[in-house]
Amino acid sequence: MSRFTAVKTFDFRFPTSNTLSGSDAMNPDPDYSSAYVEIHTDADDGVKGIGFVFTIGRGNDVVCKAIESMGDRLIGMEVEPLLDDMKKAWNLFVHDSQLRWLGPEKGVEHMAIGAVLSALWDIKAKRAGKPLWRLLAEMEPEELVSTLDFRYMTDALRPEEAVEILKEGQKGKAERIENLLKVGYPGYSTAAGWLGYSDEKMVALAKEESQVKGFKQIKLKVGQNVDDDLRRLALAREAIGPDVRLAVDANQVWDVPTAIEWINRFHEFDLAWVEEPTSPDDVIGHATIARAINPIKVATGEQMQSRILYKQYLQANAFGIMQIDATRVAGPQEIVLEYLLAKKFNKPVCPHAGGVGLCEAVCHFAMFDYVAVSGTMDGRMIEYVDNQHEHFVHPTVIKNGNYVAPTAPGNGTEMTLETAEKYLYKG
Amino acid sequence: MSRFTAVKTFDFRFPTSNTLSGSDAMNPDPDYSSAYVEIHTDADDGVKGIGFVFTIGRGNDVVCKAIESMGDRLIGMEVEPLLDDMKKAWNLFVHDSQLRWLGPEKGVEHMAIGAVLSALWDIKAKRAGKPLWRLLAEMEPEELVSTLDFRYMTDALRPEEAVEILKEGQKGKAERIENLLKVGYPGYSTAAGWLGYSDEKMVALAKEESQVKGFKQIKLKVGQNVDDDLRRLALAREAIGPDVRLAVDANQVWDVPTAIEWINRFHEFDLAWVEEPTSPDDVIGHATIARAINPIKVATGEQMQSRILYKQYLQANAFGIMQIDATRVAGPQEIVLEYLLAKKFNKPVCPHAGGVGLCEAVCHFAMFDYVAVSGTMDGRMIEYVDNQHEHFVHPTVIKNGNYVAPTAPGNGTEMTLETAEKYLYKG
Repeated sequence: MSRFTAVKTFDFRFPTSNTLSGSDAMNPDPDYSSAYVEIHTDADDGVKGIGFVFTIGRGNDVVCKAIESMGDRLIGMEVEPLLDDMKKAWNLFVHDSQLRWLGPEKGVEHMAIGAVLSALWDIKAKRAGKPLWRLLAEMEPEELVSTLDFRYMTDALRPEEAVEILKEGQKGKAERIENLLKVGYPGYSTAAGWLGYSDEKMVALAKEESQVKGFKQIKLKVGQNVDDDLRRLALAREAIGPDVRLAVDANQVWDVPTAIEWINRFHEFDLAWVEEPTSPDDVIGHATIARAINPIKVATGEQMQSRILYKQYLQANAFGIMQIDATRVAGPQEIVLEYLLAKKFNKPVCPHAGGVGLCEAVCHFAMFDYVAVSGTMDGRMIEYVDNQHEHFVHPTVIKNGNYVAPTAPGNGTEMTLETAEKYLYKG
Repeated sequence: MSRFTAVKTFDFRFPTSNTLSGSDAMNPDPDYSSAYVEIHTDADDGVKGIGFVFTIGRGNDVVCKAIESMGDRLIGMEVEPLLDDMKKAWNLFVHDSQLRWLGPEKGVEHMAIGAVLSALWDIKAKRAGKPLWRLLAEMEPEELVSTLDFRYMTDALRPEEAVEILKEGQKGKAERIENLLKVGYPGYSTAAGWLGYSDEKMVALAKEESQVKGFKQIKLKVGQNVDDDLRRLALAREAIGPDVRLAVDANQVWDVPTAIEWINRFHEFDLAWVEEPTSPDDVIGHATIARAINPIKVATGEQMQSRILYKQYLQANAFGIMQIDATRVAGPQEIVLEYLLAKKFNKPVCPHAGGVGLCEAVCHFAMFDYVAVSGTMDGRMIEYVDNQHEHFVHPTVIKNGNYVAPTAPGNGTEMTLETAEKYLYKG
C-alpha cells in the first residue's frame, strides 16, 4: 500500500511568439506554455505521475493554481484503491459539487482536472509497464467502461453499447497491435501553414513536409484576408500536387454567415476539411455551416469543452471530421468516451496536436482507437508540428510521415526538467 | 485624468452548509462564497469599483487568482478613456488571444472577466451618480450598442437590430421609470424549497412566503426521488392555493430520457416551469425535453456560460423561460446582449438570484430591461432568497413581494467589509 505524498506544479512558458511559428487568425502571438504537474507517491518504484495543460501564455499560472488547489486533497490518500477505481478518481474532482459550480465541466477547472487525472493514469500505466495506449487497449471492455461517466450521455450512448463496441474491437486486436508497432499511425503537417510566414517560406515548407518528410496531408491557416487565402491555397496546391491532401484552419474567426460565404470560395482546391470556422461552442452554427459548404467538410474539436458538446455535434451532424485534444477535457476517461461516441456515430477522429507535449500525449488515444475501437486508420491522422519536442524524455518520433508507436511505460509526457527548467516562468 | 492604482481581491466564504439552506439535488452542501474585487483609482472622488463572482466554496481561491492575474494589467492605465469606451475594456480581456485559450468565453476565466468589467461599470455608474439600471437605460441606443460584442451573434442579432430594439424602448420610458420607482419589480421566492428541509418546514415557509410576504410564485427543489417530489408538490400546491405560481428546479440532475419521464409525472400541479432539467451545455437535449413535456415549460440559464449558448437556446426554442445570472458571464455588456437576444426572440427573462450578492446585482438588469428593452414585467420576475443580505451597504429591499428599485449610485454590490471580513477565507 502506498500514499500520495506531493502534487507539484510547474509553470513553463516558451517564448514562441518570437518566431511567429504558431501564428493564426485568432492567435497572433502565442507563447506555448504548459501547466505541468508531477504527482509523487511514497512507493519504492519511484514512479511519478505526469500531467499537463497546454496553454498559449497568460493565465498559465491560473491553471497551475487550479491544479494545486485540487491536488491538495490527494495528499495522504491511498494510491492503489484509487488507481483500481478510476471512476472514483473522476467523481472526486468532476463531481465535487462545489468545484462543479466553476464549470460545470469546462474551462480552467475542467482542464486542471484533466491534468490531475492524466497524471493518475500515467502512474497506472507505468506500474503496469505499458504505454498508455496499450494499457487502455488491453483493459477488459467492462473494466474500461466502468471508469467512464455516462451522465448526460445516455440519449446518445449507453454503457452497454460502449461495452459492445469494445467487444467488437477485440477481434483482430493482436494483428493491429503488431501492425501499429511496425508502421506507426499517420500524421499530417501544419508546419508550412502559419499566417505569419511569407509565401516563399510556406511553399518551401509545403514541399519539404510532403515530398521529403512524407506527410500525406498539410494544413494552412486562413481567415485574415480572403484574397491572401486564395493566393496561398493556389500556391500550396501547386507545390504539393493533387495527391497530397490540403486542409485549412480558420481558428474560429468567422461568424456563421461570413464562414459560409468565405469557405464557398474554396471549392476549387479540393480541401480535406475547413477547421474551426466559428466558435467551438456553436453547435447549431456549425451544423448550418456544414450544410451550406457541402461537399467541403467541417472539422472541429480542439477547443471542445466536454463530452456534452461532442454528443451534440454528433447528434446534429455538425462536423464531418471530429477533432480531439489531449488537454482540453478531463483526461483519458473523457477522451475514451469521445472515441466511443465517434464510433457510435461513425465519424473519423483526427486529433489536434502541436504546441508543447500535445503530440506526445494525443497519439496514445488515436492508437488506442485503432487497436480497440474503430479498428481502422482510414481517413484518420494526427496533426504534427516539429516544435518543442526536445524537452521530452520520450519525444514523438515520425517515420515516413507516421507517428511511431510509443513503447515506454506511461503517457509519454514527462519532460526533462533540466531542459525545461530554463523556461520556468518567473512572473 | 485619473489612473487605476489597485485591484484587490477578497476570498469570502460563508458557512451556509451548516443549515442546509441552499441544498438541492446537485449541491448538497454549498458554502456560499464570493470572489470579490475592488478596483481603486487615484481620482479625488474616492470611488472604488466593486465586482464579484458568486461560487459555492472550493475553488473560490482560483477565481480570485484569475481576477488578480488580469487586474495587474489595469494598474497604471488611464481611467477615463477606458470608461468612455467599454468595448475596449471588453476586448482587453475577452479578446486577449492568450487568455482566450483558457475558455474561450467560459468557466473560471470568463467569470473573472465578468467581475473586473462589473467593477469598471460600477465606477462609471458611481461617477454618473446613477444606479446601474438607470445608467444603462439612459444611455443612447447607439452608445450602448457600441459597447457590445456581436462576434458569433450576427446569425441571430445584428447591431442595427439591437439599436432598433433600444430605440423602440425609448417610447414610454419616463413613465416606466416612474412606475418602477413606485411599485418595484416582481420577485419570487425559493426560501421554502430546499431539499434538506422537512415537509413541515417547507409547508410553513411556502405559506409564509406567499401569504405573509406577498410573493406570487414559489419554487421547490426536486430530482432526488420522484415520490418525495410528488408528495412535496401536492403539499406545496395545497399550502399556497391555486393562484400562487409554483415552479420546480432539478439543478441539472437528469439525463434527457429521465428528465422527460420524471417531469411528465408533474402535469397535475400546474407548474410555472421546470428549471435546469439537465446539463446547461446541452442545447439539443433541452430542445428535446421542451418538446416532450409541453405544456410544462423548461427554464434554464443560471449556469449558461456565454451569449453563444443563449443564442442557440433561442434558435432551437430549447426553453420557454430564459434565466440569466449576474456573475456567470462577462459582466453588464454580455447581460445586456442576453436581454436584447431575448427581446428579439420574444422570450421572458426571469433572473436567477440568491447566493451572496446575486439579488443585489441582478435586479439592475431586470429593471434596465423593463425600462429600456422589453418594456414589460408580464411573466417576468426575479428570484429571491432572504439570505446573506446583511453584508451589503445597500441590501435588497422587498416590499409586497417586489424588489424595490435601487437608487444609490453604482451596481449595488459593495459589501460592508467590517462585517464581511469575519468571513475572509484563511485556507
